[in-house]
Amino acid sequence: MSVNDTLAVSANSFFIPVVSVVGVGLIGGSFAKALKNGGHVGCVLGVGRDQASLERALQLGLIDRIATLEEAGRESDFILISTPASVLGRVCETLGPLLKSTAIMTDACSTKVQVIQDARQSLGVRVNQFIPGHPIAGSDESGPAAADPLLYWNRNVILTPLPENSTNDLKQVRQCWQACGALVREISAIEHDRIFATVSHFPHYLSALYMYMVSRSDSSGMALALAGTGFRDFTRIAGGSPEMWRDIFISNRQAMLKEIDAFMPALEETRQMIENSDAQGLHAWLEQASVARKKWGENK
Amino acid sequence: MSVNDTLAVSANSFFIPVVSVVGVGLIGGSFAKALKNGGHVGCVLGVGRDQASLERALQLGLIDRIATLEEAGRESDFILISTPASVLGRVCETLGPLLKSTAIMTDACSTKVQVIQDARQSLGVRVNQFIPGHPIAGSDESGPAAADPLLYWNRNVILTPLPENSTNDLKQVRQCWQACGALVREISAIEHDRIFATVSHFPHYLSALYMYMVSRSDSSGMALALAGTGFRDFTRIAGGSPEMWRDIFISNRQAMLKEIDAFMPALEETRQMIENSDAQGLHAWLEQASVARKKWGENK
Repeated sequence: MSVNDTLAVSANSFFIPVVSVVGVGLIGGSFAKALKNGGHVGCVLGVGRDQASLERALQLGLIDRIATLEEAGRESDFILISTPASVLGRVCETLGPLLKSTAIMTDACSTKVQVIQDARQSLGVRVNQFIPGHPIAGSDESGPAAADPLLYWNRNVILTPLPENSTNDLKQVRQCWQACGALVREISAIEHDRIFATVSHFPHYLSALYMYMVSRSDSSGMALALAGTGFRDFTRIAGGSPEMWRDIFISNRQAMLKEIDAFMPALEETRQMIENSDAQGLHAWLEQASVARKKWGENK
Repeated sequence: MSVNDTLAVSANSFFIPVVSVVGVGLIGGSFAKALKNGGHVGCVLGVGRDQASLERALQLGLIDRIATLEEAGRESDFILISTPASVLGRVCETLGPLLKSTAIMTDACSTKVQVIQDARQSLGVRVNQFIPGHPIAGSDESGPAAADPLLYWNRNVILTPLPENSTNDLKQVRQCWQACGALVREISAIEHDRIFATVSHFPHYLSALYMYMVSRSDSSGMALALAGTGFRDFTRIAGGSPEMWRDIFISNRQAMLKEIDAFMPALEETRQMIENSDAQGLHAWLEQASVARKKWGENK
């Protein structure tokens, strides 16, 4: 039995005639391919702004047809919006009036509170058809060529359902992600944004701000020549898309500000320990950090 | 021709009758083994506080004899001090009066200004026999069992020679590291400490302080369960030895404070951009960081 057979069997059996993916890159393309491999969809429509990218997705068999957003709105039974968070509102504005009454929409944006606010404003009462989601999967690569039907295998997908969502629609979204091999969890949008500010957005901010500071320092040439493996790992995330991270920081503004405002006094306090050569004070938090990191590593 | 043959041939031919390693862990053990494999030493003495660790080093063939610090001082032609920075002064105090007049000492500490100050105070006029060094090689593992004669292969070793050092002694230290396969560079101690504060000590500080903050937050359980690959890489260095990093932060105090004091206003400024939803401002530095990181990655 191949992995794909396992995927098809492990999720409940279901079939969706027309699935649309708005934004056919790594995230959307991988989702479409996994559902197609599992035999769960009749036809996948691909929507996007970049024609070359859509044609590549078609060649790769990620989608069956290139469609306009309007066509996707009218024809789809299930729509995954895997665009940057900043355009989700506009996408929903176009889709909303065209949707079948039984159609289900979900998204893949990294923040949820702002996205839900945008969706609510654009969709009005039809927001009941939108189940917000966030697959925790990524790669340094992007675009349809990087799409991989196993991208979500054993990875977390967070759903942050709205009070308006029906149990059946929620179940269908769960089934789709489970068919991709993902572990589906439900939490509130506020909790989601707070947690991802902590474990993803704030580390990205620190890493990128640090890399920015190094790149503009007087001795950056020599410094970068001597930087080693610690530097390499600490700054890897700083290479990410500036557009995507700008949108995430703004979209998750409140939780980001909380992280920064908690970090500043800790910087002040530990700076003082260094200035005072306070060996005991430094050791205490360094040890807690080291123990916590090692424990986390063992559980992964 | 094996790699070890290449090592022996690529460095100039030399032979040292008695080499001592004070602190036979990953760093000291790898150095000793590489020199032994290259046929460059007659006998390696191992000195340390942990008897079990020394016996392990003997079993592994990293050293030929376990010795006291006093024995090492009297008998050695070449001594590598690979102890924590905080004990180097005491080690030099014992070694100094016992040293052969032709003996050469070097070290492997991660900071240089404070170490040189300590060595100068302990050794007096004999500081001319001490050539400060810093091999840029590390591993998540430690102890003699992790020692690897190829640890320094193609890695940088920085020497920060003193005005008192003789050209011949400096040449001998270079030769030893080159025989390990390392690329040897010379810079001033001040420049060394500034650069390593930037590319190593300050990132460690940020990573560990972040990890500490996460570990004590209310939602750390859920947060750590959902943390992904970005978190993993960003926090890897936070798992390092609290003792070692405490010593480094204190030993390199001045350069660390400079890094922190430059970072704080950048945090303030970019925090304001997030609060103001300043997309253009955020994009500018995120893009510079992303470009710089990608360029660095390509050159490695």
